[in-house]
Amino acid sequence: MDNARVEPRIPRGFQDFLPERMIPRQRMIDTIRGVYELHGFSPIETPAVELEEVLTGQLGSDKEIFRFLDGDQHVALRFDLTVPLARVCAQYSKVLPTPFRRYHVGPVWRDEKPRPGRFREFVQFDIDIVGDASVDADVEVLVTMVETLRSLGVPCFVVRANHRQALQAMIAFAGVDVGQTDEVLRTLDKLSRLGWEAVSRLLGNAPGDPLPGIDVVPLGLPADSVERIRRFVEIRGGDNGEVLEGLRAYFGDYEPARRAIADLEHIDATSRALGLPEGQVEIDLSIARGLSYYTGPIFETTITDLPSHGSVCSGGRYDGLVARFGDETVPATGASIGVDRLFSALEELGLVKARPSVTEALVVVLDRSMMTEYWKLAAELRAAGVRTEVFLGQKGLKAQMRYANRQGIRVACLLGGDELQKGVVAVKRLDMEIEAQGKQVEVPRAEVAARVRDLVAG
Amino acid sequence: MDNARVEPRIPRGFQDFLPERMIPRQRMIDTIRGVYELHGFSPIETPAVELEEVLTGQLGSDKEIFRFLDGDQHVALRFDLTVPLARVCAQYSKVLPTPFRRYHVGPVWRDEKPRPGRFREFVQFDIDIVGDASVDADVEVLVTMVETLRSLGVPCFVVRANHRQALQAMIAFAGVDVGQTDEVLRTLDKLSRLGWEAVSRLLGNAPGDPLPGIDVVPLGLPADSVERIRRFVEIRGGDNGEVLEGLRAYFGDYEPARRAIADLEHIDATSRALGLPEGQVEIDLSIARGLSYYTGPIFETTITDLPSHGSVCSGGRYDGLVARFGDETVPATGASIGVDRLFSALEELGLVKARPSVTEALVVVLDRSMMTEYWKLAAELRAAGVRTEVFLGQKGLKAQMRYANRQGIRVACLLGGDELQKGVVAVKRLDMEIEAQGKQVEVPRAEVAARVRDLVAG
Repeated sequence: MDNARVEPRIPRGFQDFLPERMIPRQRMIDTIRGVYELHGFSPIETPAVELEEVLTGQLGSDKEIFRFLDGDQHVALRFDLTVPLARVCAQYSKVLPTPFRRYHVGPVWRDEKPRPGRFREFVQFDIDIVGDASVDADVEVLVTMVETLRSLGVPCFVVRANHRQALQAMIAFAGVDVGQTDEVLRTLDKLSRLGWEAVSRLLGNAPGDPLPGIDVVPLGLPADSVERIRRFVEIRGGDNGEVLEGLRAYFGDYEPARRAIADLEHIDATSRALGLPEGQVEIDLSIARGLSYYTGPIFETTITDLPSHGSVCSGGRYDGLVARFGDETVPATGASIGVDRLFSALEELGLVKARPSVTEALVVVLDRSMMTEYWKLAAELRAAGVRTEVFLGQKGLKAQMRYANRQGIRVACLLGGDELQKGVVAVKRLDMEIEAQGKQVEVPRAEVAARVRDLVAG
Repeated sequence: MDNARVEPRIPRGFQDFLPERMIPRQRMIDTIRGVYELHGFSPIETPAVELEEVLTGQLGSDKEIFRFLDGDQHVALRFDLTVPLARVCAQYSKVLPTPFRRYHVGPVWRDEKPRPGRFREFVQFDIDIVGDASVDADVEVLVTMVETLRSLGVPCFVVRANHRQALQAMIAFAGVDVGQTDEVLRTLDKLSRLGWEAVSRLLGNAPGDPLPGIDVVPLGLPADSVERIRRFVEIRGGDNGEVLEGLRAYFGDYEPARRAIADLEHIDATSRALGLPEGQVEIDLSIARGLSYYTGPIFETTITDLPSHGSVCSGGRYDGLVARFGDETVPATGASIGVDRLFSALEELGLVKARPSVTEALVVVLDRSMMTEYWKLAAELRAAGVRTEVFLGQKGLKAQMRYANRQGIRVACLLGGDELQKGVVAVKRLDMEIEAQGKQVEVPRAEVAARVRDLVAG
């Protein structure tokens, strides 16, 4: 062991989860997994480390990845779970079923400047359907996400849907060079954060004319292009029917927008047919999504009570991504839950119950010569499904009870020489109101496990 | 999207898990987690990326870590979950309870040469108890691990226990310079793989005298030191009592070995008192463990039917590690399951049921104009707890049934215009013997969910 003391700290933009937050976070992940599996998505896992060439190219995040050398290979930490899925689909195309429905939960990394609430390692929890080009697959993804957020108890949220082909048609319709499409989309993606005034300047100002506080170069589009873009993103209505009406009016017979309009109509109709509440799925032509690989319906999800929180769940169709690694175009659509962002949203909504420990019952150590008895009692409690620990450490009764209280343990089991002789265990409830706290009953040894199980379940 | 086709592949020594293996692997992880929680261990999570100074020093793995620059910070991927735990214990010492019982599951990385069955990213699943110096904590870790392997259905395994203080005492007793302790331990760690002949040459040959096929420099110990080491590692017996007898005879009154002998006696006595089968926990003085941070009891676990498979679960006491990051010595003990190695062991033992999909029921699409009906039927099945998918893709009945069979889906639900009018769904079992395969019954619509639930549960 070396002698120099090392400062215990982690790199900027990373975080630890201690049990208090990790326990409910794990429960949240389990709930999401349960819903995903009910919807027929199966798990996969891929390495954190990918070859750099797999992750780079025009995927819209070249500057944001952690790279390093592995021998003579250039490798990098994955920045999302979608690109690895596309690689998997090409690499194992002969053995994977069509359609391929998978979920994947795991950390991703972005080499971005740390900001409050913005981490450089965060967990994504994705579902995707690969191999079906129809809007039905998009609907299935969307329905699964709605069901997931409901299962987590999120009281009120809106899924905002748009369509990349509508945006692309609009950009062409506005007379913008097709080569600027990605830049226009990335600029529109800032709309909810910056508002139209700032975005219109980013679109229209000359490139040599940087804007204060925004480190993005303006695109220099002509004023009438910016005006056509404005007219599009500001198509609004009292319901989806009115927005779709506005969309049809905007494009008229413009062919490149036809598929997008039909898909959005289908998404709206199916949502209503499935009985989703009015406004749960909202056609919103102002959302764009930053990543360049989307090709069809796209969506974002915001929690109504936390509008500034950003999207907790988003996704879309990306029919070209698998072809990057293979010979054929494979249609694909999916969505991603930002686990960390959603978890902090649930915390803000008061939906998270912080718990210092998973333990339900403590076997108090009254007499160290009886340790074997304590291990046996713990084994019985565990066999009955009670999460149990034997107190470890050289501490007296008071300190052990204080530990149990701080840890949120609900039942203490006391067994000393007297109880052993009488064939009983003193069972003490710790989670009741103050006046009842001291409540302690002697339970025959043979009944202890069942009694404690009922107490912690109650 | 860029146009250059990228080869779909992963770096050497890494692996993908497709659903067929990921589904049982996930179930295995869930089982382990269940046992850990029953034993009162709570989850934590820490970043994959740590500051390099946290991971390096004399921790015995300097050459094996993936390092990179994060801005001007030297960072690295963690190589185990124990060092991050020690950092956490020092960093949050004011808020963590004593004892602190935590579990942690996650990938770790080692920049080693890839070998068959040896990966450079692998998942560890650890438990540790921090804050109790008594051998009771070691016993609790050991008992939890035995319970875990039993819960996974491993039929026959042996936990081999030794004690670092016994090894250190033996090394001093053999007249070896204390500065060579770590090197001797690392050499002894190769004993089960290389055998005594090779190890004795590694201990005794002169440093300038490299051995064919082994890229380790010999230590050049005098012959009588090597002989004393041999006499120690070859202490054997028909049971633990005889081994302990041999150990006492070897050391006589030698003070530095006293604590080790007492701890090993206690571990043996408690295992027997708790009714573990004879031979389940075996005192084996030849195991050493490679990492330098151990200070007390250490153990390894091998599966009896797979002796060449190596240890699937190992650990020990490391009382000095937390002090590396703080001012005070904090006692700690724990163990780690090598998830990937254990999983491949279970596969070899035939204990893993490969499953292509989690889906239990397929809603067949007979008529695309009835998609809404299919979504509704799927929602009912899911509400009843049946993992269900609606078939996605433009395929006929035969292709859909073939998909269901290949995916191991047990029930197909067929709903066409006729069934809709009659208010029924045709429910077809797919998982029965050939002659019964075609068995298809019409079930009233209101009863479908309950009926399918019973079918897939049965």
